[in-house]
Amino acid sequence: MCQLLAMNCNVPTDIVFSFTGFAHRGGRTDTHHDGWGIAFFEGAGVRHFVDHQAAVASPIAELIKRYPIKSLNVIAHIRKATQGQVTLENCHPFVREMWGRYWVFAHNGDLKDFDPVFDGPFRPVGTTDSERAFCFLLQQLRERFGDHPPAMPALRAAIADLVAVVARHGTFNMMLSDGTALFAHCSTKLCYVVRQYPFAAACLADEDLSVDFSQVTTPDDRVAIIVTTPLTTNEAWTEFAPGELKVFVDGWPQA
Amino acid sequence: MCQLLAMNCNVPTDIVFSFTGFAHRGGRTDTHHDGWGIAFFEGAGVRHFVDHQAAVASPIAELIKRYPIKSLNVIAHIRKATQGQVTLENCHPFVREMWGRYWVFAHNGDLKDFDPVFDGPFRPVGTTDSERAFCFLLQQLRERFGDHPPAMPALRAAIADLVAVVARHGTFNMMLSDGTALFAHCSTKLCYVVRQYPFAAACLADEDLSVDFSQVTTPDDRVAIIVTTPLTTNEAWTEFAPGELKVFVDGWPQA
Repeated sequence: MCQLLAMNCNVPTDIVFSFTGFAHRGGRTDTHHDGWGIAFFEGAGVRHFVDHQAAVASPIAELIKRYPIKSLNVIAHIRKATQGQVTLENCHPFVREMWGRYWVFAHNGDLKDFDPVFDGPFRPVGTTDSERAFCFLLQQLRERFGDHPPAMPALRAAIADLVAVVARHGTFNMMLSDGTALFAHCSTKLCYVVRQYPFAAACLADEDLSVDFSQVTTPDDRVAIIVTTPLTTNEAWTEFAPGELKVFVDGWPQA
Repeated sequence: MCQLLAMNCNVPTDIVFSFTGFAHRGGRTDTHHDGWGIAFFEGAGVRHFVDHQAAVASPIAELIKRYPIKSLNVIAHIRKATQGQVTLENCHPFVREMWGRYWVFAHNGDLKDFDPVFDGPFRPVGTTDSERAFCFLLQQLRERFGDHPPAMPALRAAIADLVAVVARHGTFNMMLSDGTALFAHCSTKLCYVVRQYPFAAACLADEDLSVDFSQVTTPDDRVAIIVTTPLTTNEAWTEFAPGELKVFVDGWPQA
């Protein structure tokens, strides 16, 4: 099993604090040492970092912890391999382009007997069940909606249908973003917190580090953090229900 | 105009030396300060770094210069914007997946009145002529060969045809790789050197730095470096002819 972390905000925000705690699970406070990755949307572009080294040992993870890349949507993943070798092409998140937007995907869980036929333009490069699930989602979305993206309600309904199909094959906690919204699906374990005015201090669960967000934010900022298990010890994390898909836009879970 | 750098090898090799000289052209010894990027194939996977900061100022470029990522195929680019804003989505190289492989592309030049119809699965995310050219190449290759990649002679012939079509619209120096071969097309300016046994020392043109490759190689290693203008002052660089497409495999230009 792996761990997932995502952020969705209404103003570009850096993820240094949350990533610092999360990265410690990659080989120090937890056993997730089979690679890691993170993708940041920046405008329509994506910065994509993957490494097959443990996150605690990776010079690239060190860079991320020090370099405050500001983003509206971030997805990160630390891997404990269940399927597929520990190679770069098997590190999450995965990135593809569809409808002139980049899509970023990461998965925690294990899918059994999930072998869809890939007869469209999206093919897995690596050997994970996760990348197969991502290619399946994109293939099905493109089949349903053709060459142009639908409006959000139709897109959300389609993604809800499709993740339920995949989840029949096993555990499918997943994060998906096209840079405008963050889709988070829980099979077994996912929780979130929304940080907004009045901001307070937060203490990392995995490292002796705290930050007072009121010093680094404005009253209009809103940041949702979605993660496998709570990152902080003094914030009120909300658990997802099993089978729940939430869509975050502008730092807020949509009704 | 931008500058291109690529490497194709028979054993995984780091590009620290060549990239160090090249990155200096990104805002120090030259005026290419509108972002930069580099992509490394590692097995079937790709490490992709882009930054809209000048390469000389970028913390990510600093990391690349210090972290010896070993790769068989690398493509790098420093940008002087001619079309498209200085945003992350307009930074080269661009990456797409086709036929279950990643494809990496970078371009130096300027295309006029190049507006192909995109009716397949590859759409530009940004606003550059370069990304349009990349999507056009992939769309045409997929149209010709369908769902499966052809053998190299047919692929090479098709790419030669297609780059000639694009080059009718302006300057089209470009690098393209699917991780197994490196395709380099020259409109106006490109040169290469093959480093092989007996290795010697090389001195960078853009910085007071030299390396004795005989100390860091084995007699079987072979490395081709392809670049806009020679990186070193004491090696024999071979210029491409205008209109020439060369295909490098295992560090060697194919006949």
